[in-house]
Amino acid sequence: MMTKQRNFTNMLDVDQDEALALIQRAEEYKHGAQLRLAEPVYVVNAFFENSTRTHTSFEMAETKLGLTQIAFNPAASSVSKGESLHDTLLTLDALGVDLAVVRHPEDRYYEPLVEGGDLGLALINAGDGSGEHPSQSLLDLMTISEEFGHFAGLRIVICGDIAHSRVARSNAEILQRLGAHVFFAGPEDWYSHDFDRLGTYTDLDAVLPTVDVVMLLRVQHERHATTGFSADAYHEHYGLTHGRAALMQQRAIIMHPGPVNRGVELASDLVQGRQSRYVQQMRNGVFMRMAMIESVLRANQLGGIE
Amino acid sequence: MMTKQRNFTNMLDVDQDEALALIQRAEEYKHGAQLRLAEPVYVVNAFFENSTRTHTSFEMAETKLGLTQIAFNPAASSVSKGESLHDTLLTLDALGVDLAVVRHPEDRYYEPLVEGGDLGLALINAGDGSGEHPSQSLLDLMTISEEFGHFAGLRIVICGDIAHSRVARSNAEILQRLGAHVFFAGPEDWYSHDFDRLGTYTDLDAVLPTVDVVMLLRVQHERHATTGFSADAYHEHYGLTHGRAALMQQRAIIMHPGPVNRGVELASDLVQGRQSRYVQQMRNGVFMRMAMIESVLRANQLGGIE
Amino acid sequence: MMTKQRNFTNMLDVDQDEALALIQRAEEYKHGAQLRLAEPVYVVNAFFENSTRTHTSFEMAETKLGLTQIAFNPAASSVSKGESLHDTLLTLDALGVDLAVVRHPEDRYYEPLVEGGDLGLALINAGDGSGEHPSQSLLDLMTISEEFGHFAGLRIVICGDIAHSRVARSNAEILQRLGAHVFFAGPEDWYSHDFDRLGTYTDLDAVLPTVDVVMLLRVQHERHATTGFSADAYHEHYGLTHGRAALMQQRAIIMHPGPVNRGVELASDLVQGRQSRYVQQMRNGVFMRMAMIESVLRANQLGGIE
Repeated sequence: MMTKQRNFTNMLDVDQDEALALIQRAEEYKHGAQLRLAEPVYVVNAFFENSTRTHTSFEMAETKLGLTQIAFNPAASSVSKGESLHDTLLTLDALGVDLAVVRHPEDRYYEPLVEGGDLGLALINAGDGSGEHPSQSLLDLMTISEEFGHFAGLRIVICGDIAHSRVARSNAEILQRLGAHVFFAGPEDWYSHDFDRLGTYTDLDAVLPTVDVVMLLRVQHERHATTGFSADAYHEHYGLTHGRAALMQQRAIIMHPGPVNRGVELASDLVQGRQSRYVQQMRNGVFMRMAMIESVLRANQLGGIE
Repeated sequence: MMTKQRNFTNMLDVDQDEALALIQRAEEYKHGAQLRLAEPVYVVNAFFENSTRTHTSFEMAETKLGLTQIAFNPAASSVSKGESLHDTLLTLDALGVDLAVVRHPEDRYYEPLVEGGDLGLALINAGDGSGEHPSQSLLDLMTISEEFGHFAGLRIVICGDIAHSRVARSNAEILQRLGAHVFFAGPEDWYSHDFDRLGTYTDLDAVLPTVDVVMLLRVQHERHATTGFSADAYHEHYGLTHGRAALMQQRAIIMHPGPVNRGVELASDLVQGRQSRYVQQMRNGVFMRMAMIESVLRANQLGGIE
Repeated sequence: MMTKQRNFTNMLDVDQDEALALIQRAEEYKHGAQLRLAEPVYVVNAFFENSTRTHTSFEMAETKLGLTQIAFNPAASSVSKGESLHDTLLTLDALGVDLAVVRHPEDRYYEPLVEGGDLGLALINAGDGSGEHPSQSLLDLMTISEEFGHFAGLRIVICGDIAHSRVARSNAEILQRLGAHVFFAGPEDWYSHDFDRLGTYTDLDAVLPTVDVVMLLRVQHERHATTGFSADAYHEHYGLTHGRAALMQQRAIIMHPGPVNRGVELASDLVQGRQSRYVQQMRNGVFMRMAMIESVLRANQLGGIE
């Protein structure tokens, strides 16, 4: 059930059963399960965008699984001489790398790589442009599952820059398939009607008293720097202030993919507050990435897993 | 005796007995002692300032102790998206990192981290702004101990940019407590009367014939670049020229924390000369850092050390 | 036979027998041979120029041999404070590093290091300025050997920026000694008569129908950016177009050290075409570097190899 993903590039390829199986396997890892590799697996983490959570989480997951990491720093690579991502991965493949975990600013960068057929190495997408971020989606599902034990009927609002968020896209799609009701909130300029088929765009204040999960998206200051964006105004209109938090049900939870802009998406002391699952999300991420990597290893018959 | 440091942030927390115990343990490592970890310890080196000696020395010490290193590059992390040091360490903690070795340009950056109480990981300070540099202090003590076997009554002159040197601050304080007589020399503009309680500001030429140790501080060109600083003039007035070296006692030694500006703090061929302990300091650093890390592991019950 | 290289800096030190022995040993590694180290060997890869192929290939070779890698990033080191390469290596040596693999933009950077006599660590040159690139030369020889089984009498044309190519220099010299006939082609401005003693400067079209190997050099755009260089014009006049490829003998092969500028040095679809050995070169590089490292370990009695 967990062996379908030759490459793990987007959530559209992950059906409900597989998502639930990954959550279960991640929970096993969280409770101490270990994998034994009979053969070395060489992995490269190629992050073409800055990252702490996702990058370090993959490093940790690989270490815990016993993979052999080969250092690779895009900034000090031939990419700076103009070499394409394809030719860089072709090189890593030729050098004997079995698995590449890639983050790249280009939407769907992985399609020509996977479809080209000349790359022997397996690929895990750790985030593409405004596209997908499957490991974040799955760790979010795991965190919701730990809280509620199910998805059907849950009411989940995703608030922020919907149009440009890979988290919004990946999550809304799978949550809907799992039977949750998805709402979108945030500035109208940051919403795209492409998302209409995945949920309902609404006012945050209106929906807050009824939801089980408030999923806040990071404001990408680097994207909005030149548009007269005001952090204070954002917080007042779309952020989880103390006033808005008081509207939430007691058993509802707050989620954020990080890094948090404290005092923007939510009030600073809510980040580690009673209803926040921010730290738990990061913790779960390591175990979910272990499950995803195992799935890819099995699909590619890597590591000699019995 | 070596188990007091929950976090190793500054020399003020290190009493005389602990300093001597660390030196003894470092000497044991230098003579081949090995530590056996029964459980993995995950460590991150987070250097927010450039470093060769200290950074690589910690990498080597951790490797020799059998710690599991998780790659982390501040320049490619979410720090560049504005994430704070606290939130970065909160992330690493959630990901399962047990120990962070941190260098950061801000004075006493570690205080809010240690006092906040929300970080489970242990912290070793590898240098903070113009503040402390405990591992450098301890390797300096080890090097002095190897030479003289004691500290009481030793006469030690520290020469250079006293006010902005974390080495000067850390060393003067502990050397005084260990019974040494500390002198300061160098440009008056670079001296601060904050140091009066730790030693005597004096003329280098006057004190050179009587001291056991000449401790030269690196000129931080990056700090003095815009002030009309002249390397030649500095060498002539405050550097260890051949003329000044000839004033030293035969058994006196020269120390420098590195990197050396050859021909500025001291004449180039004195760097690896008979009286210099520059290379020995670097060599000792690995073993002292092993002792410091062991101390922190024991205090935090990490690694399952019997 | 394989134990001569105390430091592996240039091909002039490698005699024919040693080259053939290295090829044989690399083939053994390619067919699964393993080395067993009885003692840890600490290695640093210090790349002062960007690289994917060579850097990652050395990382992989070291990992497969079981060396212990110590992380070192020149951009985050004291080199940025002005520390010299010599003093950086002196530091790494003092910290216990046994072997440094260095790429540096300065021609013959290694000479003062090797001749100084104060460095205990062994050195492998991974490319110096416009000078030497011994690991590339040897993996090229390995690839030619796999194809033809011998070197005597082979006709090999090297095309491109001969004057500034470390590949051209290293390869022409050893190929000539091994009995091959070497030809040079490419823009006259990019040729230097220093190479006259190693081969014949000629027209690419004239020699193409008669050669066994076409060795294309990378156009260093970073070098020619300001000179009105036209990629299209280069491709038309000196590149391996489909038209020129049709002039080649059926059994002749195409080689390129990478990274390829597709559509400049050669037509894009020739890169992975039937006659290209581009991927095979990269693959062979790991095994050749294993053989080179073993040679240096043995010459320095490192690793306790029986």
